[in-house]
Amino acid sequence: MSSHPFDAAVALQAQADGTFLGHTSAAYANMVGPFGGVTAAQALNAVLQHPQRLGDPISLTVNFAAALADGPFTVTARPARTNRSTQHWVIEMWQNDETVLTGTAFFGLRRDTWGADEHRMPAVPPPADVARAGGPTRVEWVKRYEMRFAEGPIPAEWTGADQGASRTRLWLRDDPPRPLDFASLTGLSDVFFPRVWRRRPLLVPIGTVSMTIYYHADAALLQRTGSGYLLGQTQAQAFRNGYFDQTAQLWNEAGELLVTTHQVVYYKQ
Amino acid sequence: MSSHPFDAAVALQAQADGTFLGHTSAAYANMVGPFGGVTAAQALNAVLQHPQRLGDPISLTVNFAAALADGPFTVTARPARTNRSTQHWVIEMWQNDETVLTGTAFFGLRRDTWGADEHRMPAVPPPADVARAGGPTRVEWVKRYEMRFAEGPIPAEWTGADQGASRTRLWLRDDPPRPLDFASLTGLSDVFFPRVWRRRPLLVPIGTVSMTIYYHADAALLQRTGSGYLLGQTQAQAFRNGYFDQTAQLWNEAGELLVTTHQVVYYKQ
Repeated sequence: MSSHPFDAAVALQAQADGTFLGHTSAAYANMVGPFGGVTAAQALNAVLQHPQRLGDPISLTVNFAAALADGPFTVTARPARTNRSTQHWVIEMWQNDETVLTGTAFFGLRRDTWGADEHRMPAVPPPADVARAGGPTRVEWVKRYEMRFAEGPIPAEWTGADQGASRTRLWLRDDPPRPLDFASLTGLSDVFFPRVWRRRPLLVPIGTVSMTIYYHADAALLQRTGSGYLLGQTQAQAFRNGYFDQTAQLWNEAGELLVTTHQVVYYKQ
Repeated sequence: MSSHPFDAAVALQAQADGTFLGHTSAAYANMVGPFGGVTAAQALNAVLQHPQRLGDPISLTVNFAAALADGPFTVTARPARTNRSTQHWVIEMWQNDETVLTGTAFFGLRRDTWGADEHRMPAVPPPADVARAGGPTRVEWVKRYEMRFAEGPIPAEWTGADQGASRTRLWLRDDPPRPLDFASLTGLSDVFFPRVWRRRPLLVPIGTVSMTIYYHADAALLQRTGSGYLLGQTQAQAFRNGYFDQTAQLWNEAGELLVTTHQVVYYKQ
């Protein structure tokens, strides 16, 4: 039995009616509600633990319909279509009979093919040569990840001055370190702080409304990555009238691309 | 009544039970089944035409569960959660009681805020200085779009030699020209030919399994874009074990970013 806080956070209990029961985790609490990366991992877990699951995740989209209240939730995963080697899932999460998350996932059995990582890992100093971010934080979940910013850390001064660009590069992993699996990779895909704070340092209210993850890693790649560092890179493409997007990539230390992910985020001002 | 083939293709008839009835379009036929961009537009249209719709699209994810057969289909859109100024939708499309598409959408009312286009339009010659792609084509839908490739056209020789990169840049618009709306912008977001053919020119079988669109354009921006050209840019990030992703951006001629979009695509070999 693992004693890692992430395992406790994403644990689901299968119910007699085919749904799963989960619970928000104090260890991954955000300003309002839980850290979205863990909520996304819980949604994925409902498929991973489903008795009809075929293959491994290729894509996941989750839409955050409301901030979860601290406490229990119900999550359902329905196999909408099962083909010979692929499967499409519809996911929904409820609290008190209200939808708090909608989502879809695509799973598949992978085959050996020609391949290439086209988006190459940028050159940054190794993790040991980059200072670990630390100091007091107002949100609990941040303490569950080790972050070493090679470029674009959380602003030290909230001046509101347009920085002209929003890119951040950092080494990151679970704290304490934990062997990578699809659930934890899902959490790690959402660790990046909102790009609007980086582009224009003002602590404006924000909230992710939709996130999509493409899993380029298969089980073998997860295993050889183990509990090593990932390099994360993230940048916005546009900020306009209350919503911005951010794209991100995650590589392992060997430079293999594990994940590409995108999200669209509400912001005020 | 518009006589543009796109309007006929995405038309839906509201049914007494709250579902919509649509029909595949011969004008937008692909190798197997219809052009996915029109299927995605039909899915979006089920929300756009829904009596309970609030606001405009901010994000759309569609998952292609099976190639549609030529003929009618049923599509449903369910408002899973309606907040004060935002709305989350679950979409599903059926043929013969089998799911052929799943999806989710997020709609919202936009407010004026600070904004910036961070991903800037690349410098390419104007549309009039770029030759229009033409010649015989095996698929009907390609004739419904004007395409002028500034970089990375469809390969002339299928040598299989690794090109090292997969980027394409092209001017594109509906043919005949048609004032832009959210449905046609959805179709235009899927016009890019598969990146695996560009990176490694071999006509391997492919099929998009999931596509996400972030709409940075609001109604005013659509209106000032009108029926002008869009500049599209697309590139893959990784190809591995049967699946690759491709990202894309669409700007209007004035350089305003209208859409960022991503898809994950099955490929053989």
